[in-house]
Amino acid sequence: MTAWTARFSERMAHVRASEIRELLKLLDQPDILSFAGGIPDPALFPTERISELYGEVLAQSGPQALQYSISEGLPALRRWIAERMTLGGVPCDEGNIVITAGSQQALDLIGKLFLSRGDTVLAERPTYMGALGAFNAYEPTYADLDGEVPAGARLAYLVPDFANPSGRTMPRREREALLDRAAAHDLVVVEDGAYRELRFAGTDEPSLIALDVARSGSIENARTLFCGTFSKTLSPALRLGWVCAPRAVIDKLVLLKQGCDLHVSTINQMVAARVVAEGYDAHLERLRAHYRERASAMQTALARHMPMGVTWSKPQGGMFVWLQLPEGLDGAQLLEAALAEERVAFVPGAPFFAVDPQPNTLRLSYSLPSPAEIDEGVRRLSRVIEARLASRYSAAAAG
Amino acid sequence: MTAWTARFSERMAHVRASEIRELLKLLDQPDILSFAGGIPDPALFPTERISELYGEVLAQSGPQALQYSISEGLPALRRWIAERMTLGGVPCDEGNIVITAGSQQALDLIGKLFLSRGDTVLAERPTYMGALGAFNAYEPTYADLDGEVPAGARLAYLVPDFANPSGRTMPRREREALLDRAAAHDLVVVEDGAYRELRFAGTDEPSLIALDVARSGSIENARTLFCGTFSKTLSPALRLGWVCAPRAVIDKLVLLKQGCDLHVSTINQMVAARVVAEGYDAHLERLRAHYRERASAMQTALARHMPMGVTWSKPQGGMFVWLQLPEGLDGAQLLEAALAEERVAFVPGAPFFAVDPQPNTLRLSYSLPSPAEIDEGVRRLSRVIEARLASRYSAAAAG
Repeated sequence: MTAWTARFSERMAHVRASEIRELLKLLDQPDILSFAGGIPDPALFPTERISELYGEVLAQSGPQALQYSISEGLPALRRWIAERMTLGGVPCDEGNIVITAGSQQALDLIGKLFLSRGDTVLAERPTYMGALGAFNAYEPTYADLDGEVPAGARLAYLVPDFANPSGRTMPRREREALLDRAAAHDLVVVEDGAYRELRFAGTDEPSLIALDVARSGSIENARTLFCGTFSKTLSPALRLGWVCAPRAVIDKLVLLKQGCDLHVSTINQMVAARVVAEGYDAHLERLRAHYRERASAMQTALARHMPMGVTWSKPQGGMFVWLQLPEGLDGAQLLEAALAEERVAFVPGAPFFAVDPQPNTLRLSYSLPSPAEIDEGVRRLSRVIEARLASRYSAAAAG
Repeated sequence: MTAWTARFSERMAHVRASEIRELLKLLDQPDILSFAGGIPDPALFPTERISELYGEVLAQSGPQALQYSISEGLPALRRWIAERMTLGGVPCDEGNIVITAGSQQALDLIGKLFLSRGDTVLAERPTYMGALGAFNAYEPTYADLDGEVPAGARLAYLVPDFANPSGRTMPRREREALLDRAAAHDLVVVEDGAYRELRFAGTDEPSLIALDVARSGSIENARTLFCGTFSKTLSPALRLGWVCAPRAVIDKLVLLKQGCDLHVSTINQMVAARVVAEGYDAHLERLRAHYRERASAMQTALARHMPMGVTWSKPQGGMFVWLQLPEGLDGAQLLEAALAEERVAFVPGAPFFAVDPQPNTLRLSYSLPSPAEIDEGVRRLSRVIEARLASRYSAAAAG
């Protein structure tokens, strides 16, 4: 090892692979029945129409589609998003929107803008681990969103609708209470709306940013930054998300975006602008019907197979169910056993906690397997849990 | 202004638009003859073939092309790049490559990995202002690459081939001397190879990374990180670049990339992998012939029209000529006059300096205008310069 790589390794020790990333590499084996990935079912991508639109865009506007474009993002796409945000109770225009490379980049740019070493981020327990991955580069500390607000708290991050990983939707009174606390402590609120369009049961809660605008009178006075994405609804591979926020914030995010990667793929933005303009709501209805069926199969299977003492969330949208195992069981150990004994996979819950992890938890995604596979996978997983519980019982009886 | 936006504005004062960005917004007017943009001629994009390949990729591998993919980048594309780097004297494999959203993102990720507030970056005078835009987010200081190496120097950044903005190519003995100094001061060397494939005269100099590998015996011992891009050769809109570096560095960059935006557009990578596999060198020859003609027209026009006292570079590749005006003339003032009096545009030189700017400089790009437009534009620009020199002479005579 040369001097510079030694110095490099020492300095960069805090940049390390998440356990979960390493673990998910093991799950590529085809005979494993997996509830691990939180990725959309590719059967739902409008592949044919997207293919036609690449052809149309390149035939009609090839030189523009393949050229550099502005860091803000394609005006037509920003206008469409602004209209949609307006319909959702957030009157705004394209100056309140920046297009990002998925909502992951939105979180990174927000971290870059707002966080310095030692600032505190308030996060749900559990929270989206990809957000932690984005924020960690700026070396904040974390605290529980439901606890005391510490000095140095700067930013609250949450997924209020069908959260990844918990599947939970925050009731309206909690949303209002959160905005009260944010105002009292002068916090920036980062609303991750990744799954918001995927409601398949119940009725919409107003977004945090809509409630904030209703209080403050205008998006320009809001303290909430809304992060949206087309990754769960159109295609993750286009890498298209956005931030909707006060113009003063958008202007800074655009400058940071310019320094980071200049702009999102021009052609992908042009294709997406056409796809969404010609029937996004009908497309969303197909997605919702699909995920409703899968979520229902998951609830049925859990009720049928899971042993006493295991509880789980009942999401009204999105892709995830959160399981609480009896105290003393460990999600990570359970995964090892599940892979070895039953060829079934999931994500252990602990890595989703920024503070005070609960090891007796796990996340199941129902986005990819069929209803029959869901039943079979949950049956296998239940056997593994039962075996752990039985061996614990025998150990206790023998002790 | 609410409390939080006030605090925000104060804290974010260092994130501001570059003068040049604001200025370039003025240049969109169609009657302006512009040497300002450093963007490729869209007539050179392989638009038809790219359009066919989007169709082919989506027909053959739609679900994969529209799905999430790994942060490292598409293995087939990384292998192709590694083979090309190997042919260029840098034996390596796909583990030494990460795909980035253009080389702009490569610079951002490198800044994120290596720079903290107060670290010193050594840069050429002038240097690529987009690199300064990427690095500035990490609040380094700068020093002249040709000067004394200060304590705290961490990283040397340079464009050794047909530099943006100077058009200059670094001779081999300077490359070797730079590597000597980098070793003596334990510096990371960031080689921006954006224009390297666009040589239209003379013979190739070895890349810095190839010279480094020749010394150190293996890419794993090299201190040079090579940043490449398809933006100047295929299409900037695909947002595809790469870093070639020791695996220990690539692994960290991949983790940072994952936190920043997960991965580059899957479908764009799949299309690019097919385009380059079927005749990249023949395509590059067409580009080189095109830029050779434009560069030659630019040299002819400068020699024909420019007044005494103006000097300029004679690039052997790339897109840029660098002009030195007589002492006392100011590029920014000249631009105002050129736009107002002659409807001709360029980029003033001062913003390209990280330290000690030379205001009597400017950058001309010959990538977009035709040879006739180049002659006409240079004639107009010469008139503006002559008028400034004449008025200075009269002022001196009257004084």
